[in-house]
This record gives sequence, C-alpha cells and structure tokens, in this order.
Amino acid sequence: MKLIIVGGVAGGASAAARARRLSEDAEILVIERGPDVSFANCGLPYHIGEMIPDRNKLLVVTPERLRERFRLDVRVRTQVESIDRANHTVTLRNLLTGITSQEHYDKLILAPGAAPLRPEMPGLDLPNVFTLRNLQDMDRIKQAIDAGTKQVVLVGAGFIGLELAENMVHRGIQTTVIERNPQILTPFDPEMTTPLAATLRQHGVQLKLNDSTRAIRTGPDGLIVELASGESLPAQVVILGIGVRPENKLAVDAGLETGPRGGIRVNDRLQTSDPDIYAVGDVIETVDFNSQERTQVPLAGPANRQGRIAADQVFGRDTRYRGTQGTAIVGFFGKIGAMTGSSEKTLKRLNRPYLKAYIHPAHHASYYPGAEGMTLKLLYDPDTGKILGAQGVGGAGVDKRIDVLAMAIQAGMTVYQLEESELCYAPQFGSAKDPINMLGFVAAGRLRGEHPQINWEELAAARDSAPAASGLVPWVVDVRTPLEYAKGHIPDAVNLPVDELRQRLHELPRDRPIVAYCQVGQRGYLATRVLTQAGFSVNNLSGGYQTYLLHHPT
Amino acid sequence: MKLIIVGGVAGGASAAARARRLSEDAEILVIERGPDVSFANCGLPYHIGEMIPDRNKLLVVTPERLRERFRLDVRVRTQVESIDRANHTVTLRNLLTGITSQEHYDKLILAPGAAPLRPEMPGLDLPNVFTLRNLQDMDRIKQAIDAGTKQVVLVGAGFIGLELAENMVHRGIQTTVIERNPQILTPFDPEMTTPLAATLRQHGVQLKLNDSTRAIRTGPDGLIVELASGESLPAQVVILGIGVRPENKLAVDAGLETGPRGGIRVNDRLQTSDPDIYAVGDVIETVDFNSQERTQVPLAGPANRQGRIAADQVFGRDTRYRGTQGTAIVGFFGKIGAMTGSSEKTLKRLNRPYLKAYIHPAHHASYYPGAEGMTLKLLYDPDTGKILGAQGVGGAGVDKRIDVLAMAIQAGMTVYQLEESELCYAPQFGSAKDPINMLGFVAAGRLRGEHPQINWEELAAARDSAPAASGLVPWVVDVRTPLEYAKGHIPDAVNLPVDELRQRLHELPRDRPIVAYCQVGQRGYLATRVLTQAGFSVNNLSGGYQTYLLHHPT
Repeated sequence: MKLIIVGGVAGGASAAARARRLSEDAEILVIERGPDVSFANCGLPYHIGEMIPDRNKLLVVTPERLRERFRLDVRVRTQVESIDRANHTVTLRNLLTGITSQEHYDKLILAPGAAPLRPEMPGLDLPNVFTLRNLQDMDRIKQAIDAGTKQVVLVGAGFIGLELAENMVHRGIQTTVIERNPQILTPFDPEMTTPLAATLRQHGVQLKLNDSTRAIRTGPDGLIVELASGESLPAQVVILGIGVRPENKLAVDAGLETGPRGGIRVNDRLQTSDPDIYAVGDVIETVDFNSQERTQVPLAGPANRQGRIAADQVFGRDTRYRGTQGTAIVGFFGKIGAMTGSSEKTLKRLNRPYLKAYIHPAHHASYYPGAEGMTLKLLYDPDTGKILGAQGVGGAGVDKRIDVLAMAIQAGMTVYQLEESELCYAPQFGSAKDPINMLGFVAAGRLRGEHPQINWEELAAARDSAPAASGLVPWVVDVRTPLEYAKGHIPDAVNLPVDELRQRLHELPRDRPIVAYCQVGQRGYLATRVLTQAGFSVNNLSGGYQTYLLHHPT
Repeated sequence: MKLIIVGGVAGGASAAARARRLSEDAEILVIERGPDVSFANCGLPYHIGEMIPDRNKLLVVTPERLRERFRLDVRVRTQVESIDRANHTVTLRNLLTGITSQEHYDKLILAPGAAPLRPEMPGLDLPNVFTLRNLQDMDRIKQAIDAGTKQVVLVGAGFIGLELAENMVHRGIQTTVIERNPQILTPFDPEMTTPLAATLRQHGVQLKLNDSTRAIRTGPDGLIVELASGESLPAQVVILGIGVRPENKLAVDAGLETGPRGGIRVNDRLQTSDPDIYAVGDVIETVDFNSQERTQVPLAGPANRQGRIAADQVFGRDTRYRGTQGTAIVGFFGKIGAMTGSSEKTLKRLNRPYLKAYIHPAHHASYYPGAEGMTLKLLYDPDTGKILGAQGVGGAGVDKRIDVLAMAIQAGMTVYQLEESELCYAPQFGSAKDPINMLGFVAAGRLRGEHPQINWEELAAARDSAPAASGLVPWVVDVRTPLEYAKGHIPDAVNLPVDELRQRLHELPRDRPIVAYCQVGQRGYLATRVLTQAGFSVNNLSGGYQTYLLHHPT
C-alpha cells in the first residue's frame, strides 16, 4: 500500500499518524507546501499578541518527529502540481529547487485546507496588508506589529478577527474591526452577539458593523482604509479575516466533484467522486449532522476526526463520518461565545419548525464568590422536544454547558431529558439545579403547556401589527420590583410586582392577552402560573428583560 | 387538596414551590423543625472558612419570601410528631411554645433529610465537639473557631470533611483529618484519590488514613483526640463528618417501609408504601440508574429533582424518577475530584463485567498558557462499549468532562460515540481532540482489538504469581526517553525509546508477553502497534507511568 497525503496540518497529520498506527508496512508520504507540519493553527493570534510568547510552542510536531516516530516520508516545501487519476500518480514540485517528480499512489488523501478569502479591492498588495493562515503569515504580522504599529484595522468580525482584536488590545494597539454584516460572529444568532460586541467596545475595540472596506491606500501614517460608509481609517497594519475558500484547485483540475461553494464533495466514508481519493478538513463539503444539509465548516476538531476516518477507510476499516455538528467557541477579554447544532437563522432558512428558550443563569451557586453570568439559548423541536441547537454567551462555564448540550444533540436527547440530567454540583462548580436542568424546565414546561411563553419577536410583531387600543394587542406586565422597573423596562409595560399579583388581579384586563416578564423569566413564570389559574390568557416573555436587552443593544 | 410537606430545605422547598406553581388553590403547609428554610446547605463550610463572609448569602429563600411569593403556610421551629395514616392527620408540635396541634392532609411529602452519624465513643458531648448540618451548627463552629482555635481535628475524609479542611487551612488553623478507610473520599476508586490526598498534604493538612477516633477527652489545650493507633492529638475543635443516616423515625413510627440502611422505600413515583405519602431527598432509598441496585445517595441535585417529581405526582402529573446516577464533585485548594455513574469498586462488588481506560490530558491546548493536568478514568461494558462510569481528578476542566460523561451515561452512549463527539475547541477551552475524544479512542481501540491494553493490577498480579524466569511473566519495556526513565520507572522495566523501537526489535523477547508503557499511554500505544505488527505479543499499560504512580502514592 502506498498512501500519499496532501497537506500535513490538522486533518493531514491526523490521517498520517493514524495510517502508520494501522500499518507498519505501508509507504506513507506526506506532502506539505509550507515548511511546517501539524502546527497550532488556532494559536497564531496569541503569538502575535504575545499571550503565547514562545513561538516554538506552536510547533506541535516537527517534520523530523513525524519521520522518526511514525516513519513517514514527510516532504515539506513541496507542492502537488497535479493528479493523474488514470495512472494513479501525482506530480510533485520541490518549491526550493523547482524540480518536479512523479509518485505513484494506491490511495490519496487530500487535506490541503482552505485559503483566506481576499476581496476584490484596490490596495490589497500594499505592504502591511495581511491575511493569517500559517506561521509565516504570523511572523510577518508580528514583525509589522513589533515595528511600532499603533493602529490596526481588522476586516471581518469572525472568530479569527475577534481573537486578533483581543491580542491587538493586549499589545496596546488601537484596534478597529470592520464587519459588513449587522452583527459580529455570523454563525451565531444576532441577539446572542450583543453582550460580546459590548465586551469588545468596553475594551476599546472600535466595531464598525454594516460597513465594508472599499480600498486601502498609503497615507501619512502608513495605510488608509476607506470604508463604504465614506469614513477613512488610518492604520499601520490591516489584516483581512473575512473567511476562507477551499483549496480545491488540485481536485477541480483532476475532475473531482465539488459543491457550489467549492468544497470537495465526499460521502460518509470521506471518499471523493474517485474511490481511491479521499478528502478531509477545510477543503471538503460535509453534511450537517442536524439538518443533513450540505455545508462547509472549517474547524480543527472535525478536520482531525476526518483525518482519522480517511486513514481507517484506506486500511479497510469501515469508519463513517457522522457529519459536522457545528460546535464552535470563541473567547476574548474573559468572555465566551459558544454554539452547537443549528442556529435559529439556519432553522428559519430551512423552514424547520422550532421553539426556543432563553435563560440567564450564574455559572455556579450565586452564594459562592465569583459567580459569573451567562445567557443560554436552546432551540428544540416543537413536537418531540428533540434538541436542535444551543448557543451560550457569558463568562466562565459557558463552554461546559455547550459541551454538555453538544453531547445531548449527538445522542438525540430531548428537553425532557435535560430536566433529569444529573450534573456536578458543589457551590464552586454549578447549582443544585444546573443551568442545563433549568433549560430543560423552561423548554419542557412550554411543551407540556404548563409554562406558556412568547418570544420578544412575537410580542414586538403583535404590538406593531395592531393599533394599541385593539383587544388583540398584548397587555405587558412587568412583575419585577418598582426599583428594577425604574432602572429600565419594556415601553408601555405596567409594573405589578409578582408578590402583589394575587391581591391585584382586578387591575389586569380580562379582554386582552397578557404578557408577563421579569428580569430573567423566573418570576414571570410564576406570574404566568398565577394568572393562568385565575383565568387570564397569559404568556411569559421568554428570558425576560435580559432577553429584551439582547434584542436592543445600546 | 391539602398538601403537607415535612422539611423545608432542598427537596421540601423544591416540592413546595413546584406544588404552588401547579395549583393556586391547594392548601400547602411546609413544616420545618429548624428556624430556616431552603438555606445553602453546601455553603456551610465556606462561611466557617470566611470564603463566604456574608452569612446572609446562605439564606437562599426566607420563610417570609416563601409565604409572600408562593402563598405557602410555612411553619418553622415546628416538628411533626407523628402521622396518623388511617385518619390522614399529622400531629405538629411548636418547638417554641410546646403546643401541639393536628392537621389533616390529603397528601404528605416527607423531606426531613438525614442527620450526621455520631459514632459510639466517649467524649462526644464535650463542648467544641461538633457535627455540621445546619446554620446553627455552622454558627457554633464558627464561634469556636473565631475564639482562637489553633488546631482542629476532622473525623472523616468525606466531601464535607475535606471541604472543611480547606476552609480551616484558609483560616490558618492546623488541621488533621482522621479516616478509618485506607483512602479519602470513599465513593471514588482508591487510586483516583492519590493526587487529591497529595494536594491536601501539600497544603499542610495532616491525613491519618487507616485510623479512627477512639475517644475525645479534655486536655490542657482544650480537647485531646485519642486514635485507635494509640496517637493522641490536641485540638480546640473536633468536627465529625463520618456520614449521615436518614431521619426516618417519623416514617418508621408510621409503619412505612424502609430499606436495610434506613432509607424510606419509594417507587419511581417517589411514593412510599402508603400511596398518599411521598418521600424525597436524603431520607429515601433510591435506585441506582446504572445498576438498578437500591442505594442511598444524599446529594442536593437529586433531592431537588425528587421534590419536583413528588409535587408533580401529588397534582396528577405522572413524572417518574429515573434513579440516581451518583454524579458528585468536590473541590479544594484548586483541585477537583468528580465522578458519575458506577465506580470500579461498585462494578466489582456487583460482579459486573467492565473494562477501564485511563488518560492524563491537559484541560486545554498545552501550547496555550495555563494548561492544567487531569486524570480521567472511564469504565465501560466489554461487549457493547456502553459507558458505565467515569471519574476525574485534577485542575480546571475536570467538572466539564465529568458533566459531559454524565450526559453520555444518561443517554446510554457508548465509547464509540465518544470518539465522534464534537466539543468546543479553541486553545483556551479544549483541544482539537478533546480529552473526551481521547477517552473514546483508548476505550474503543481496546474493544476493536487494535489497542491491546493491560491494567496495572493485572500486570502486578502476573508478575507476582509466577517466578521472574517464567516465560509467562510479562517483559516490561519503558518506551520513554532515557531522561524520563532515569527520573523514575516501573521496577525491572527495560528502557527502549519508542523512536528507536523499529531498529531494535531484536532486543525484545519473542517467547514472553510484552508490556509497553510510556508516561501517559500515547507512545505506549504506538509501541504496541509497532510490536504487534512485528509479531510480538504485546499490551500497552493503560494510562502509562502516571497511572502506575496513582497506584503507588508516595
């Protein structure tokens, strides 16, 4: 067996190590265009920001180590020029010498990754305009930063862009982020990004949403970035982080099937349209685990998993790829955004019925010092209660809850099962009713009809669509304390504290639907119970005033 | 409907709040012997240690709040003297006035909790010999500590005992913990407690295992604790934390069925042998979710869950209790011990076949600063791969992995599914191959036969049972570097670094089974692959040298 693996980073390196474990006899070539294999891709922004001061830390495995330990024929600075599928050969070019050669393969695994997108725009080739993909890009950016950069413009408020923003601020650099969309972190639902955007601004990052870069030119202080809005921003360094496109040229030239967004099409064995060629990592189109839609998700975890599976397949083990679940996380300035499964946006686009629940718990018992707040959003099936997706934003413990929910989605669990989950509780780590249980209570209570809820969007639409005098317009009651109400409330809401509700039922209208809300939803739930049993038509505003605020960023 | 709930803390308070949500009309009495309801039981040690300085933080809900918000008839300092099942009445005694009264009930929920065990021993009634159950106990202990205590003896190295130990050290008090068993934290498997015991000792806690308290008497510096070993320890305060027994007197007197360890017997509706009487919390015998064995697990999470279910049942909702999974956690001095599902001890006792896997990962990418180590142990079914239990010990992130595995156990997942889990990865939060995936690889690799493993106990037994010259005694090869080997290794192991293995195959015996090991198991795995394919009979030592060290505390 002669196996050639194209690309030696996440998916390629995983495939290579797994291949050798499965076969001592196989001839295994790893062809890598760059000088490094298996480097810590996700650590690049942190070396620029000097949060990881030692560059060597990013070299997870050297080519030498791969050769020694796994007896791999690793060829760095070597490019695969073409694939001759009929003859089972590839043409290699040594990028240092320019010499080309041919290699036979029995099986081929393509793991070339994805390249940063570069928009059509004047000035992209100016010095100090960068993209960040590998250690060499990182070195160039760091050098430019070290040379006394005072202002940076980051184009794109995606994961890498915002990790870069944190690192720039860490270095004392004035940082502006330009994002064409009305929200940062587009895989998330927009309201969930509100606290994260606020965190960025609190730490001095200038966020320019709904704007885009039109041109970059030289200016008195280095560069000038011209925005679609007409604004011009001075900067010494510009970094583009607007997304990636699959490095599919080799595959396309060889006539392998690709999807509409360029990803190499594979089956659940990660086999391309040529059964002797597999493909893994950022270059492929995969299937969404939840929706079974074709998708492209450039993430390290799935890439590693895929590399392993492709090697299994090459050596006759019928491991399958179950699809990508879309679990992702980003952290900056001590805050976390994490998600798994489908977003609300995706469910809407697919016309998939769903319900949603919001809670705003503390990450551990609030009586123990250091409790940090978070917002969790759960998306679930209105018929079966099956969990479809989850997003979390806040401080410590968000990653834990999203990981727990990632397992629930993988296992096909329902919101009823979340009610019964038995998770770690001591005051430093959680609550006797963990946020996961609370999500279950809120979501399952709605399905059982014992906790009728309305989302902010529905309430807003009902208020907008009918004149205020109409009996159909919900009457909104704020069941918090007068002090909480005075600090800020939903327009036109009447304050009636939950503890007085039973005595003041006569103050509520019987001819209009009522919406109750409190700070996070708990007192609103009790109010809903009290009012329902008193014969009113009432819904609790899901997630309360805190969810309202997510929809109304200041 | 008139519902009487006996006990107003975890399970009782949950039942009461849920009951009111389900019915505005029901008459609901909560009878609590102490002065407080719904206090933060698990926070008591932390107020003594002044890690929670404000006592009010522990009063989660006051009786007044329960009355106002939930319109409950809360009677504190009131004891239920007896239950007249035939007439559906209870006799109450007001502990302040001594006046007794009768109350009719339609349904009764018993949630009296459990009382600290007190051993038979002289000196238990001396001043400054305490148990810790409620705020009043806490106040007394804190007062004694504040009065200038320099030395404390804690009897019992369970969860509360060790939380107290941390808090005592936090207050600068010389702390000794006496434990009758050869290990701390008896719910855990012994080897998993090795790092936690070391942490306690590093922080100055004197641990006396395999010893017990024989008597307490007065001495020149307050008290003297006499141990079975003959040693005498001076102390100003002694706190007993050797376990609890169900407060079952009321139930037993009323003729309700109880189990061999005193827990009130209930069905999965939490109904006692009298269908109008339910029981929840530390007072009941429950069923182990995994083994379906009857068990008693005094934990806050299950108590809260049970309270909710009992209320559901009272108001005609057929919610069932799925059993207790045994998820538990303890933290001190920045270290964590956590578990879920069955321990190895339990599986052995039940003669349940199992396999186990150990890994020693970092809690996040090791290239990002601040990675903390942990040990995870997984117990799984040798036929199906179903996960039976898990334990974790180490620093940050242990709670996350045990929670993830708690979900896996709840969902009936297998180790094969752990290989495919898609969890949050950014360098601050995890690894592209999360510890959960690694556990899956190790465990599933063993089931598939591609990663043959041997446990330390098996290796030790094989070495002990046959003379060293015998062909059956495993030949042990340490595949780490010479430097690692020099720092400490398994007796009689031969050093042969993994990277030289292929060139030195002739140095290995073909007539004896080989056991390979490295630091954590990863290089040992590769060695096993190399040697198996070269025709040797070889196993990897599960968890490597680090697991060996767990079995050999210094």
